[in-house]
Amino acid sequence: MGEEIEHLIRLLSKVPGLGPRSARRAALHLVCRKDALLVPLVKSLHEVLEKVSVCPQCGNIDSVSPCGICSNRGRDAAVLCVVESVGDLWALERAGAVSGRYHVLGGTLSAFHGVGPEELGISRLHRRAAVDEVREVILAMNATMEGQATAHYITEVLGDCGVSVSRLAHGVPVGGELDYLDEGTLSAAVRSRRPFSEDVT
Amino acid sequence: MGEEIEHLIRLLSKVPGLGPRSARRAALHLVCRKDALLVPLVKSLHEVLEKVSVCPQCGNIDSVSPCGICSNRGRDAAVLCVVESVGDLWALERAGAVSGRYHVLGGTLSAFHGVGPEELGISRLHRRAAVDEVREVILAMNATMEGQATAHYITEVLGDCGVSVSRLAHGVPVGGELDYLDEGTLSAAVRSRRPFSEDVT
Repeated sequence: MGEEIEHLIRLLSKVPGLGPRSARRAALHLVCRKDALLVPLVKSLHEVLEKVSVCPQCGNIDSVSPCGICSNRGRDAAVLCVVESVGDLWALERAGAVSGRYHVLGGTLSAFHGVGPEELGISRLHRRAAVDEVREVILAMNATMEGQATAHYITEVLGDCGVSVSRLAHGVPVGGELDYLDEGTLSAAVRSRRPFSEDVT
Repeated sequence: MGEEIEHLIRLLSKVPGLGPRSARRAALHLVCRKDALLVPLVKSLHEVLEKVSVCPQCGNIDSVSPCGICSNRGRDAAVLCVVESVGDLWALERAGAVSGRYHVLGGTLSAFHGVGPEELGISRLHRRAAVDEVREVILAMNATMEGQATAHYITEVLGDCGVSVSRLAHGVPVGGELDYLDEGTLSAAVRSRRPFSEDVT
């Protein structure tokens, strides 16, 4: 099949979602659709390579620097939402759930993987949170052990910043069926129950 | 996130194996690993775009033309193996199962999709099979309705070529468990049973 294609298959198999087998299928698909897909894809990847960079303020990824969210004066400067990854930031943006700005950690604390506060740049977060404008820090970590441990650590670190620190609510996912949920989620949902009259959606 | 990334996500979601959600993850992964993955991938796609083409003889895809298999004098010129797609050709090559050369149809006959003998280039296959050297045509279509209908049609067309036409054996996949196989496969495997002393692997 030619070493060029084999090399492409090896690279494609490193893309998340594609294994060795599906990378082969993807490569074949690309070669068979040169004009419809391969040429536009090369062009698009080139543009991303040239233009897209990490925002020096929040860690988001965008084609402008600082990113569109950091430079948007319409966003609430009083709220800083801390997330583990850019993917989480995008998910919250799709939900339109955060009025403020973000801070991307790029991971969680992990003694096992040698990720400490310096690796996550917690001191940079502290500096951002200590700015007068900022009133609330929302910790939107994943509901995993690592995510929650990181959230606890950050809460302690931000103790002297004069901000209120909140975390995302645990509960039943909207559209979720109780029968399929784990005990931890169910008991959290019962503990955090709200008056029926309140608008919680 | 910038229109460049959105455009890339749209293109990536057209790659088989990636849906809208995994395309987003893949784009993010690429942007976060510019030097390790994005740059090599752009280079590799560029090389494939420049060098790789469809073999004018058999329909295989390779960086040389005619392809490495067609130009390999060590291959048995008496055997022509007909496959539906380049992916099937690669699968047979990985198995090292075919000593001869190939002919890629690029699909199956389908009245519903308007694919007739002209679209599949059956007359080109007929010309190749009619060459003196060719003694056997192996029909390696998929064991689907469309594949088998196409195989039947080709068998008829090649009737005047003076070649023996064979098809792949149906049976129990090597490593397969009987309990998980469908009735059609099991009865085919019993009908085509072989003396135990024969080496069938």
